[in-house]
Amino acid sequence: MSNMDDVFQVIEDRREVYLGWLTEICRQPSIAAQNKGMKETALMVERMLNDIGAKTQQVPTAGYPVVYGEIGGGSGATKTLSFYDHYDVQPADPLELWESAPFEPDIRDGTFYARGVSDNKGNLIARLAAVDAYLRARGELPTNVKFIFEGEEEIGSPNLGAFAEAHQDLIQADGCIWEAGYCDIQGRREVYLGLKGILYVEYHVEQANTDMHSMWAAIVPSAAWRLLRALESIKDEREHILIPGFYDRVVPPTAADKTALAEMPFDEAGRRTQLGLDSFINGLTGPALLEQHMFQPTANIAGIWSGYTSEGMKTVLPHEANAKMDFRLVPDQDPNEIFGLLQRHLQDTGFGDVEVKLLAEEHPARTAPDNAFAKLIIDTFKPAYGHDPIIYPLVPGSGPMYQLCQKYGIPAVSLGVGNENSRNHAPNENIHVRDFYKGIEHLAVILDRFGTDET
Amino acid sequence: MSNMDDVFQVIEDRREVYLGWLTEICRQPSIAAQNKGMKETALMVERMLNDIGAKTQQVPTAGYPVVYGEIGGGSGATKTLSFYDHYDVQPADPLELWESAPFEPDIRDGTFYARGVSDNKGNLIARLAAVDAYLRARGELPTNVKFIFEGEEEIGSPNLGAFAEAHQDLIQADGCIWEAGYCDIQGRREVYLGLKGILYVEYHVEQANTDMHSMWAAIVPSAAWRLLRALESIKDEREHILIPGFYDRVVPPTAADKTALAEMPFDEAGRRTQLGLDSFINGLTGPALLEQHMFQPTANIAGIWSGYTSEGMKTVLPHEANAKMDFRLVPDQDPNEIFGLLQRHLQDTGFGDVEVKLLAEEHPARTAPDNAFAKLIIDTFKPAYGHDPIIYPLVPGSGPMYQLCQKYGIPAVSLGVGNENSRNHAPNENIHVRDFYKGIEHLAVILDRFGTDET
Repeated sequence: MSNMDDVFQVIEDRREVYLGWLTEICRQPSIAAQNKGMKETALMVERMLNDIGAKTQQVPTAGYPVVYGEIGGGSGATKTLSFYDHYDVQPADPLELWESAPFEPDIRDGTFYARGVSDNKGNLIARLAAVDAYLRARGELPTNVKFIFEGEEEIGSPNLGAFAEAHQDLIQADGCIWEAGYCDIQGRREVYLGLKGILYVEYHVEQANTDMHSMWAAIVPSAAWRLLRALESIKDEREHILIPGFYDRVVPPTAADKTALAEMPFDEAGRRTQLGLDSFINGLTGPALLEQHMFQPTANIAGIWSGYTSEGMKTVLPHEANAKMDFRLVPDQDPNEIFGLLQRHLQDTGFGDVEVKLLAEEHPARTAPDNAFAKLIIDTFKPAYGHDPIIYPLVPGSGPMYQLCQKYGIPAVSLGVGNENSRNHAPNENIHVRDFYKGIEHLAVILDRFGTDET
Repeated sequence: MSNMDDVFQVIEDRREVYLGWLTEICRQPSIAAQNKGMKETALMVERMLNDIGAKTQQVPTAGYPVVYGEIGGGSGATKTLSFYDHYDVQPADPLELWESAPFEPDIRDGTFYARGVSDNKGNLIARLAAVDAYLRARGELPTNVKFIFEGEEEIGSPNLGAFAEAHQDLIQADGCIWEAGYCDIQGRREVYLGLKGILYVEYHVEQANTDMHSMWAAIVPSAAWRLLRALESIKDEREHILIPGFYDRVVPPTAADKTALAEMPFDEAGRRTQLGLDSFINGLTGPALLEQHMFQPTANIAGIWSGYTSEGMKTVLPHEANAKMDFRLVPDQDPNEIFGLLQRHLQDTGFGDVEVKLLAEEHPARTAPDNAFAKLIIDTFKPAYGHDPIIYPLVPGSGPMYQLCQKYGIPAVSLGVGNENSRNHAPNENIHVRDFYKGIEHLAVILDRFGTDET
């Protein structure tokens, strides 16, 4: 690794320029769910990529285009590093809870407030700034870089899989830097090596063909009770999921995973107090609690409704009942296979009449802590931040990492410039300005290390 | 029993008068739930009672008054017959589904359409008309009669119990004719000897103090699952209610009840087809099905809701969950006792955190088929209609019969002028005009038989 002072000096000199880029892109709404400013933002992002010297294209999809860019490395460059980010943001409401307008960026006490600044425009700009600074300081990059900026992450990346499948040449890389990262309450940076998958289904049960007066309940079957019985058949009271074959592909945490879990700070008592809980599920504490959190799949009732749900009384025997359920999946569970197992389970347990519809699915994805790329990236934190990161071998949320990376054998690591309270998806979304600059330095270090690493 | 030709002749002569009374009262809205026309209707009913010679009073309650009237019998009269009816009606909406306006009575093809004509103004007027005709034909009644007309039946009779308690002298009678009766599809009249009770409760569960992203579902307990587990503890898959002591006071049907059930026409296949059901609960058929329907208590989920219940997906771990449940109770279950047993059951099964609130309760009430008053009334159908009635030893709906009758040892029997499709509580509520006149004749027979019976 080279001494980075020259690159850091450029970053220092161009602070106002990079903050200007961030301000410009955050001023531009890009709400995919409402088709607001999407075209303008795609054009802006492409122009910004051109400005740092990238060859670009807008790759059409069935939805919003993927803005793609690449910059070849210098003569010694043999490897390719890709950056996955997204230019769309969440809707801004409830507007009345914002202290400054969501698309009028405002800096107060060193914190930059705007919709999307943490998720994920701050990271997108930090990637561009790092490449820009490196090129200005050194004239060339030590590695080929690719930018894959999608416009549909906040609506579930419905077209990213098809994009990747159709453009495997564009996405191919030796490693991918994923979109986001935060720090803990003490400011320790975090790095994430994987995501849980998800299977989101909706159940629908009908019994009689009309709601009835509840005086019929002694002899006419109830859709509400029927749905409850079906849901009961899916998970027992100890949180064990009862679908045959559900756990067959679950890979238990490795020794490296367990080491990471053991070193992960987690303020159990503080979190319990914050949530008003006497205890976590099954009374778990310590490493067992974190292992459950990170490495166990779930069957969550995201919603359930049947019958009369307003004030007061109605004596009705409901003929329809519905529930929404998300299963969070861990490596190597396959959401489509799990959906098949769920359907068969309902059949085999006598609930063949319970309709189940697949609303969304996403594979789990991970890169092992002892993977060479993961280790290389983990080792870049100390030179940039002065401390090693907190390593999350897996995080319990979901994203399209499998579709873009693991499916094609590309290791991926997620990191970014967020903080412990960046309020993604919520009013007053923010990043600290110092984290933005630090993040640019960190990315410059990553470019350097990745490009010069011989392993 | 005397020959009734003289009384029937008066009824024949005064058909237009009685139909005029019915039209007048049906033109007057009296919606207790909306406080619409209640005062006017109470005054109208009182005036109508005065017009047939009754001594009246409006007895104040915490809500709408009970209109009370009495007429002493002739010199040989030793017994007292009471009539329980109500002068309030259901709201009329949805208005657009009415073929004629709900408070503009309209007769089409011999059927009289108006809100409240079946439930229960047609019966109220038929009672008045029968007494009027009897008095005109004979100069005096063979029995003392009392009229107890409440104004809050359609809002759950919240003050009838207190009225009865405070005015036991007014309600005392040797038998009570309850408010309503219908016929089957072949026109066979029905008589009802009792009502199920009801206990209506609402459950509320909280776990964490806020909804969370569903990625927390592996370690943070779910209110939705918690509620499901609590509900499961209340009833098993064979419909057996698991609350200890729940069945302790259940009186099994007697031989007389079983005879009535065996003779009760019930078109199982037709009803199944109509409801789109493959089978009734537990595959029951025949007398066992009817016994379950009439004599078994229920635990019905009238409503359940938690989490996200709109279109599409939200990955939320709900911190609140709610359900409404009505238990239909059979003699001699006591709703307040059952509520206590339910609370204790939740405590004892580890669901002490599940809040349960009592919204309404009503005792079951019944008069045995071999009770002398019941037998006397049952025997009045043939002289009036030419056939014996279908006897319901208990009906699965609920009403304030216990509060007014059984609690004070007064036998009660329900009958009236409705038909097989009178559409109570629904648009195009109706009675057949011929059933109205026949019902007046029947009530005259009842007065006569009851007054002259020596048992």
